[in-house]
Amino acid sequence: MVQIPKQAGQPPIESEEAQGPRPVPTSADVARLAGVSRATVSYVLNNTSSVRISEPTRHRVRAAAEELGYVPHAAARSLRAGHSRMVLMPASHVPVGPLFSHFQYELQWALRRLDYTVVQYGSVGMGGDEAARAWAELRPVAVFVPGTLEPGQVEVLKRAGAKAVVTLGSERVEGAHALLMDHREVGHCAGAHLVERGRRRIGVVVPEETGLQVFSEPRLAGVRAAAEPAGAQVVPLPLAYTEESAAELAARWRESGLDAVFAYNDEYAMLLMRALQDAGIAVPEETSVIGADDLLLGKLIRPRLSTVRLEMPSGQLLAELVDRVVRAPGAEPEVHDLLAASMVVRESS
Amino acid sequence: MVQIPKQAGQPPIESEEAQGPRPVPTSADVARLAGVSRATVSYVLNNTSSVRISEPTRHRVRAAAEELGYVPHAAARSLRAGHSRMVLMPASHVPVGPLFSHFQYELQWALRRLDYTVVQYGSVGMGGDEAARAWAELRPVAVFVPGTLEPGQVEVLKRAGAKAVVTLGSERVEGAHALLMDHREVGHCAGAHLVERGRRRIGVVVPEETGLQVFSEPRLAGVRAAAEPAGAQVVPLPLAYTEESAAELAARWRESGLDAVFAYNDEYAMLLMRALQDAGIAVPEETSVIGADDLLLGKLIRPRLSTVRLEMPSGQLLAELVDRVVRAPGAEPEVHDLLAASMVVRESS
Repeated sequence: MVQIPKQAGQPPIESEEAQGPRPVPTSADVARLAGVSRATVSYVLNNTSSVRISEPTRHRVRAAAEELGYVPHAAARSLRAGHSRMVLMPASHVPVGPLFSHFQYELQWALRRLDYTVVQYGSVGMGGDEAARAWAELRPVAVFVPGTLEPGQVEVLKRAGAKAVVTLGSERVEGAHALLMDHREVGHCAGAHLVERGRRRIGVVVPEETGLQVFSEPRLAGVRAAAEPAGAQVVPLPLAYTEESAAELAARWRESGLDAVFAYNDEYAMLLMRALQDAGIAVPEETSVIGADDLLLGKLIRPRLSTVRLEMPSGQLLAELVDRVVRAPGAEPEVHDLLAASMVVRESS
Repeated sequence: MVQIPKQAGQPPIESEEAQGPRPVPTSADVARLAGVSRATVSYVLNNTSSVRISEPTRHRVRAAAEELGYVPHAAARSLRAGHSRMVLMPASHVPVGPLFSHFQYELQWALRRLDYTVVQYGSVGMGGDEAARAWAELRPVAVFVPGTLEPGQVEVLKRAGAKAVVTLGSERVEGAHALLMDHREVGHCAGAHLVERGRRRIGVVVPEETGLQVFSEPRLAGVRAAAEPAGAQVVPLPLAYTEESAAELAARWRESGLDAVFAYNDEYAMLLMRALQDAGIAVPEETSVIGADDLLLGKLIRPRLSTVRLEMPSGQLLAELVDRVVRAPGAEPEVHDLLAASMVVRESS
């Protein structure tokens, strides 16, 4: 049934040696130069402790590897060690904001201190199964997904040896550990504050930029949940992050009858507040404006921006969770409720 | 010389089958279930075109792989294919700003359209050689480094099969393709403008946050190169990104005799400008303030912030360079001069 032509008689793994003007050195080359077997090269370079090899031989192997510029394969090495130290994280599909950028930075350091390496995998344009298989091919020991997964993806990752799958999002995923961040709380916090201030017609900015719906929709739902039972109306306001879009929205403000706006985050809030002021709308007298994220820049404008402060998980917490789960992979999925949203009232509301 | 105890008699690669409560499926399991050889499994799952395999057999192998949840190793697969489609990029060691975040996002899409995958590798806390070896272990087809490399690192990557090594920074690295961004131009642009405005004692903000020296030092040098020959003095001003640090600097402003400041970027400029205004210093009458990056937020404050606009390379340009070099790996290193810095004069200078 299988017909193998002559030229394919070699094991395919040898093809590495045949390509390019300067061949990539293999462990066979190292073995030849050091005058030892390939097994010995593997034992020495992987620090296998169950095999006793004399110090002069170890030295000869290392010197040969260095001379040839031989680097073992990460995947082959992880097979031998039982698992890798790689924590895979899909790269963000949208440009990341300052809060998330800082969290990523912290996480990278925290995992590094526990001897893990974070690898961010660009999976844009891939389907769910395709992405999970691509991640699985790198044989990560753990996978951290900001967002959600399908249970089938968790299964693919576990079958490929991932000992921990952790999601960061608003819902638990079967088989995965969960850091829960419910963005409805952010909207709820803003809505409750505006109702308390006596506002009765509340706009909610919904960014037109793609990829932000995963945050903007639950935030809108949260405002509704807080405001509508108290008799206030909630109006979604599409807005692009440009001065033109903000100016258009501001030009229609008075006819819309809005007396407050929760502007998705501080950047959209600063943009819209300036447009409202330029259109002659007094903030906060005529209209309250609230952002979210508690950026330093919000304190610098006048009136100072009221904002919903949200705590991202600390990189340390997540790193410790990953390490704990890698050591005890059979344990029940952990669930951590993370999002602490609180109102920071300044001058704009 | 090599003494192998009994339990280590198995080839180390088999250890994958021995670990954990639910073993990771191997190609041997797929072969067993499908009733074919391991070689056939490999030919089918890697779409090897030089081997003819009947459609029913292909179907049986794929069904068995799916049933078992078998995913091939990326590294093994890249060996068979000759090279991977992975473009490795070291993850940033500092939280990334909005310009770079947007560039990363664009790059990810542009490479994806050419069927490459971007993998960002967290190398914080690694030495140069250690980092290069860790990157090389993933067998990327190309490596893109925002920053610099030592020539030895380029060599390690090339010996491990990387067909393209591209740096983005102020200097060329031997053996690597270079996208040149000279941040002295940013400072020069600001310095020339301030001198033209008649300013004679120019402060230059040097952020205290670690990791930014690679940008702040050439920017300071650029201001000096523009201002000192014209008889203006240049004074470095350490500043942390906090209101307290800015207030302290503003409190000493009049005694320092400064009449202008280039504030590293727009965020530091907005912070310092507010502190100067709060301390009663008139901007721009008493002191000119300039940022860099041309963020939208700089247009929203009053006075509107003057800024140095800099063009990041487009993700498309870099993706095309990578693809061209991967196809013709023997070609001479390409050098592209990228940084177009230009002054955007608004109201603060």
